[in-house]
Amino acid sequence: MPKNLNIGLVGGGFMGRTHSNAYCKVFHFFDLEYKPVLKAVCALPEEAARAFADKWGFESVETDWRQLVTRPDIDLVDICVPNNLHRAVAIAAAEAGKMILCEKPLARTVPEGQEMVDAVEKAGVPNLVSYNYRRIPAVTLAKQIVDSGKLGRIFHYRANFLQDWTISSNLPQGGDSLWRLDVAVAGSGVTGDLLAHCIDTALWLNGPITDVNAMTETFIKERHHQLTGKVEPVGIDDACSFFCHFANGSLGLFESTRYARGHKALYTFEINGEHASIGWNLHDLHRLQYFDHADDSQVRGWRSIHVSDGDQPYMNHWWVPGLQIGYEHSFVHQVADFLEGIARGEPAGPTFREALRTQQVCDAVLASAKEKTWKEI
Amino acid sequence: MPKNLNIGLVGGGFMGRTHSNAYCKVFHFFDLEYKPVLKAVCALPEEAARAFADKWGFESVETDWRQLVTRPDIDLVDICVPNNLHRAVAIAAAEAGKMILCEKPLARTVPEGQEMVDAVEKAGVPNLVSYNYRRIPAVTLAKQIVDSGKLGRIFHYRANFLQDWTISSNLPQGGDSLWRLDVAVAGSGVTGDLLAHCIDTALWLNGPITDVNAMTETFIKERHHQLTGKVEPVGIDDACSFFCHFANGSLGLFESTRYARGHKALYTFEINGEHASIGWNLHDLHRLQYFDHADDSQVRGWRSIHVSDGDQPYMNHWWVPGLQIGYEHSFVHQVADFLEGIARGEPAGPTFREALRTQQVCDAVLASAKEKTWKEI
Amino acid sequence: MPKNLNIGLVGGGFMGRTHSNAYCKVFHFFDLEYKPVLKAVCALPEEAARAFADKWGFESVETDWRQLVTRPDIDLVDICVPNNLHRAVAIAAAEAGKMILCEKPLARTVPEGQEMVDAVEKAGVPNLVSYNYRRIPAVTLAKQIVDSGKLGRIFHYRANFLQDWTISSNLPQGGDSLWRLDVAVAGSGVTGDLLAHCIDTALWLNGPITDVNAMTETFIKERHHQLTGKVEPVGIDDACSFFCHFANGSLGLFESTRYARGHKALYTFEINGEHASIGWNLHDLHRLQYFDHADDSQVRGWRSIHVSDGDQPYMNHWWVPGLQIGYEHSFVHQVADFLEGIARGEPAGPTFREALRTQQVCDAVLASAKEKTWKEI
Amino acid sequence: MPKNLNIGLVGGGFMGRTHSNAYCKVFHFFDLEYKPVLKAVCALPEEAARAFADKWGFESVETDWRQLVTRPDIDLVDICVPNNLHRAVAIAAAEAGKMILCEKPLARTVPEGQEMVDAVEKAGVPNLVSYNYRRIPAVTLAKQIVDSGKLGRIFHYRANFLQDWTISSNLPQGGDSLWRLDVAVAGSGVTGDLLAHCIDTALWLNGPITDVNAMTETFIKERHHQLTGKVEPVGIDDACSFFCHFANGSLGLFESTRYARGHKALYTFEINGEHASIGWNLHDLHRLQYFDHADDSQVRGWRSIHVSDGDQPYMNHWWVPGLQIGYEHSFVHQVADFLEGIARGEPAGPTFREALRTQQVCDAVLASAKEKTWKEI
Repeated sequence: MPKNLNIGLVGGGFMGRTHSNAYCKVFHFFDLEYKPVLKAVCALPEEAARAFADKWGFESVETDWRQLVTRPDIDLVDICVPNNLHRAVAIAAAEAGKMILCEKPLARTVPEGQEMVDAVEKAGVPNLVSYNYRRIPAVTLAKQIVDSGKLGRIFHYRANFLQDWTISSNLPQGGDSLWRLDVAVAGSGVTGDLLAHCIDTALWLNGPITDVNAMTETFIKERHHQLTGKVEPVGIDDACSFFCHFANGSLGLFESTRYARGHKALYTFEINGEHASIGWNLHDLHRLQYFDHADDSQVRGWRSIHVSDGDQPYMNHWWVPGLQIGYEHSFVHQVADFLEGIARGEPAGPTFREALRTQQVCDAVLASAKEKTWKEI
Repeated sequence: MPKNLNIGLVGGGFMGRTHSNAYCKVFHFFDLEYKPVLKAVCALPEEAARAFADKWGFESVETDWRQLVTRPDIDLVDICVPNNLHRAVAIAAAEAGKMILCEKPLARTVPEGQEMVDAVEKAGVPNLVSYNYRRIPAVTLAKQIVDSGKLGRIFHYRANFLQDWTISSNLPQGGDSLWRLDVAVAGSGVTGDLLAHCIDTALWLNGPITDVNAMTETFIKERHHQLTGKVEPVGIDDACSFFCHFANGSLGLFESTRYARGHKALYTFEINGEHASIGWNLHDLHRLQYFDHADDSQVRGWRSIHVSDGDQPYMNHWWVPGLQIGYEHSFVHQVADFLEGIARGEPAGPTFREALRTQQVCDAVLASAKEKTWKEI
Repeated sequence: MPKNLNIGLVGGGFMGRTHSNAYCKVFHFFDLEYKPVLKAVCALPEEAARAFADKWGFESVETDWRQLVTRPDIDLVDICVPNNLHRAVAIAAAEAGKMILCEKPLARTVPEGQEMVDAVEKAGVPNLVSYNYRRIPAVTLAKQIVDSGKLGRIFHYRANFLQDWTISSNLPQGGDSLWRLDVAVAGSGVTGDLLAHCIDTALWLNGPITDVNAMTETFIKERHHQLTGKVEPVGIDDACSFFCHFANGSLGLFESTRYARGHKALYTFEINGEHASIGWNLHDLHRLQYFDHADDSQVRGWRSIHVSDGDQPYMNHWWVPGLQIGYEHSFVHQVADFLEGIARGEPAGPTFREALRTQQVCDAVLASAKEKTWKEI
Repeated sequence: MPKNLNIGLVGGGFMGRTHSNAYCKVFHFFDLEYKPVLKAVCALPEEAARAFADKWGFESVETDWRQLVTRPDIDLVDICVPNNLHRAVAIAAAEAGKMILCEKPLARTVPEGQEMVDAVEKAGVPNLVSYNYRRIPAVTLAKQIVDSGKLGRIFHYRANFLQDWTISSNLPQGGDSLWRLDVAVAGSGVTGDLLAHCIDTALWLNGPITDVNAMTETFIKERHHQLTGKVEPVGIDDACSFFCHFANGSLGLFESTRYARGHKALYTFEINGEHASIGWNLHDLHRLQYFDHADDSQVRGWRSIHVSDGDQPYMNHWWVPGLQIGYEHSFVHQVADFLEGIARGEPAGPTFREALRTQQVCDAVLASAKEKTWKEI
């Protein structure tokens, strides 16, 4: 008989939905010792919290996260609020002895993140940062291929994350779904929002980054601010490119922007090794591209692997070969791995400590761009 | 306040899972008058029914479908058993005044299907056959484009459904998940299992088929039968091709097989009109291919539409642009549409009556192949 | 020192250009015993012949093909006139003892073609029909893979050839470049023009076809005729589909049309074997798709082979890996193979005799469609 | 009647072949005032020159380029020797009053290139550097789209050129076809060989680059040198990445390497504008990717334009829609444009002066990488 694990969700926005859906689904598809129970959701205003709770089946609502994180009937605090609140909620939850699942990026800055790492480690609570793309089956398969050693010496790692949703200068900043454009809340623009994903995957697949050299740009310098009601300077990076060295001797090249017309959420990466290469993109997330130089030369080519078979990562939990899963499933896998890790006593990554390394790269990238020089990590 | 709608599911196999998942999810993503409640599931043996109920949250179990369909606390009977049981369950459910959602194909034969149509129409109960691919957003978008008239006169409709899972002669027939190879249970092979999907979509997008000419083949003539324990003749069609005329004057070409190495579940269709063409395939179900001859000739080309924006069918219920949904969501949409139709008093299609037309084409295809001649519908 | 081989070209249209280009280029890229010399071209009116000769460097012109084929300084007669003239020119050339390279299809009908076969075999002259797509490197590579036995038992062969250039009803028939719409000249529509290519490749890759069942359609029943100046009935098949059996037990499915909006010249084929599958299309003619079930299951997928390496067919004659060649090169390879075959005394295929088999399938297809019944070959 | 234009080719290697083929073909497909005549080729040793002349039809051979460039019967000197000889040959040819077509890059360094520009401008002779990819029809179409203004404000330009042919450490440097690995001869590695192409296209499509920041790497530090017979340090850049600003305010990101397993010659570029985006790659050089935000939102997607129609650049000179041309045709177009420019008195680009700007970016890139700092152009 599975044990109930009571979830307290802080934040009822887009990410609150992806996480709630994961908690609802995970038990249907995975055999777990812990079964998530949607105990409470915290959001503002209260009617929004109430509506969210009705929709997803949360048993109760809160409007003050401080209340929620200390409730004795909560086992796990899930942080889905904007970046500027991560630190405070996480530290309070850790102090209350709760398990914590926190949306990425860990924090706005390394110092904030360091405090969070210290808090969870002091409290000894299981903790995870939601870099969900690790758990797209094709990406997890990439990790398995890398770990198998099939690629040989790695020469290149390149990734980009291209969007186009902020091209219009009429788009305001601040408030609701637009806090990502408000530097005070988000901490940064594409670097923390998008490149952080690319960096997390890169560190996972290719090991530490030792130094970076970056360029950022803010294409639209002023936008109407929904909270102040005035036109305000835009403080975020609209676009960011950087190159870097990895500790394994390979070169990295990264780019992100919200001004790439035609790309909605095109996260791509490619790894070039001595013997084989791997490529992936989020717009066709169920496929992995794989080139194996060991194939007979006459019939050698990039393989388009439709990652939907039972012997491919996570896929034995879903349907039958050929039938795709999607974006939301990465969150289901994340919860499954987190709960299994808790049951086994081995935390699933990325932990807060691991996610801090991504933060360190992000901070170095922003500093490099500002100071126009290489920065060591 | 939504009203509860009590679901009684007959069958706890693969399709039972897809339907249960749909009932669990639909209310989270759609605003509906009716909220499905998983009241009872019927399966055999009882421990299997019990395990299924525990996994998905059904309140009770049955081991005799006759029991389930007459329970007064059941509003909707969902039929997810093999084809040979569709008729009996559906008729009993209709006679009990239940709403019915039945997996495809409607039946093994037209006469069976006709009885089912008669039963639901006599009872006046809402009824739907689960041709779920209609409700992949890209396919629904295709329907919208067709209905807009943008294609002009239609010349060609072609579709195929290619799989490769029965190539091994060691694969047995009969029992459990292999009833699809047993003609007594399935009624036919790829024609009823796969071409039925292609035909349903075709009738929906391109109107009635008037006559057909078909070829079938059974590549592996004998297989071990799991129920009899002996090697038995294989009675199903392993592969089937046919061409046909549509009432609108266009030509159709269809093919299905389970012997196309490299294709797991590759359902594809393409429509060629005077002014524009449309293409789709299930292996990249989130994309629609569209060619518009009205585009400026220098920059004209097939558009690969990533169907993930809020103004594309169903997608405003899910995530944000660029983030894929998958196979399972077609069932969520199906339930949403069925429940909305019930609330509005306008049944969503395909109804049993509509699905009978698909059955008529299937039967004509099989007869044509057998008699080596054209068959009118 | 290479020996000169004097070419006499009959026909100065589109195909005359592709062949002339091949003769001009072949010696630059292949080491051959015979070096083609453009001795004479025959076309009408004389000024067109003169202009063609000036453009391509033919030494002389003729306006009567009977004159050309008997000139003692001509070694090889190349037939690039419309189909209705193939028979007469070829027989005359054979009687004059000339080597013959004839554009496809061999003839309008089997009886015509039989006469041509008889003539060249009686004369004992080298002869080749220009089914040039065999010599696209990716297609030749497909042949090598098939011959290697890697595919195992073959289950399916499917091909189509889709175009869209005759959709407008304002397009006239007859004369100049539009003789392909005039049944008296062309013999048939898409069957002889396009399906003949598909059939030639199929017979080459997959062996004999034993019986066929076909459907044809003429969408636009009347067109202005450029020669008569009147609106005349259209006698050709605008579209044709057929299925068939191959002698090796596999099933064939073929389709061609000139009414598939968005496809300019989309010849595609796919072969599904027990162990592996192959796919190709003319719109990306430099790529071969290959699926090998023997690949490790986790990383198995369709390989997109960029056929541009020196160890792939013909490619050691061209540039460096990654750099494409195109349509015209298939004709260069054809001439190279023909001349090498002549030097070796082993004729390159398809000979007239081999091409007659394609004609037999075409005739059976047209008869099947007309009589609405299966036809044996 | 066209006038003869006598060509003197210096260099009989790979590029000598591409240029010779272009001279042989151009008159067959373009109507020109000047008809190239292959008057002389210069190569070493003499038997190689002789063999090359026999193969391609050059009337005479030279073994000393100084001899060739002063021959009175030579009108145009075509420079296809390694980079270290460009300067000397070009200056001598200019002083002899010859028209000059020079392979890229213009020179090893800006000072060398500046001398060459001064020489041709002082002599007033037509001059062109062979950045042939400008004249791939899809790339030329990209230029037309950019010039039409359809893209609006440009935000991003990214390009890379990925190869994998030098991954083996057993590959020697120096001599014959491997001079590209010898820094003394080539001047640089991927920067001059591959990025130079990317930069030329970028300057052409997107205007001047104002500053750059680069990283280079030499993965294999020592290789056997074929000329010295010893293991020698490798002086070239094996890989190079840089980002930059364009004068129009857009950001650039460039990468090249010869260590990207699986990519033979994958030159790609993408331009993101406010209203539309364009993408292209050399492995499918006949296609252009185009996204137009003005398309109706429901059916908006990247168009894959098969650039093979008569109203697309250069294509009216070749075959019919759907039939690809390849790599070699870019050289034919280059010669056609150069000869037409000469006839019109308006030189086709890129002239030596224009190509010097590419050299300036290359030099700044290498200096930036060496000094680890931004460099202005």
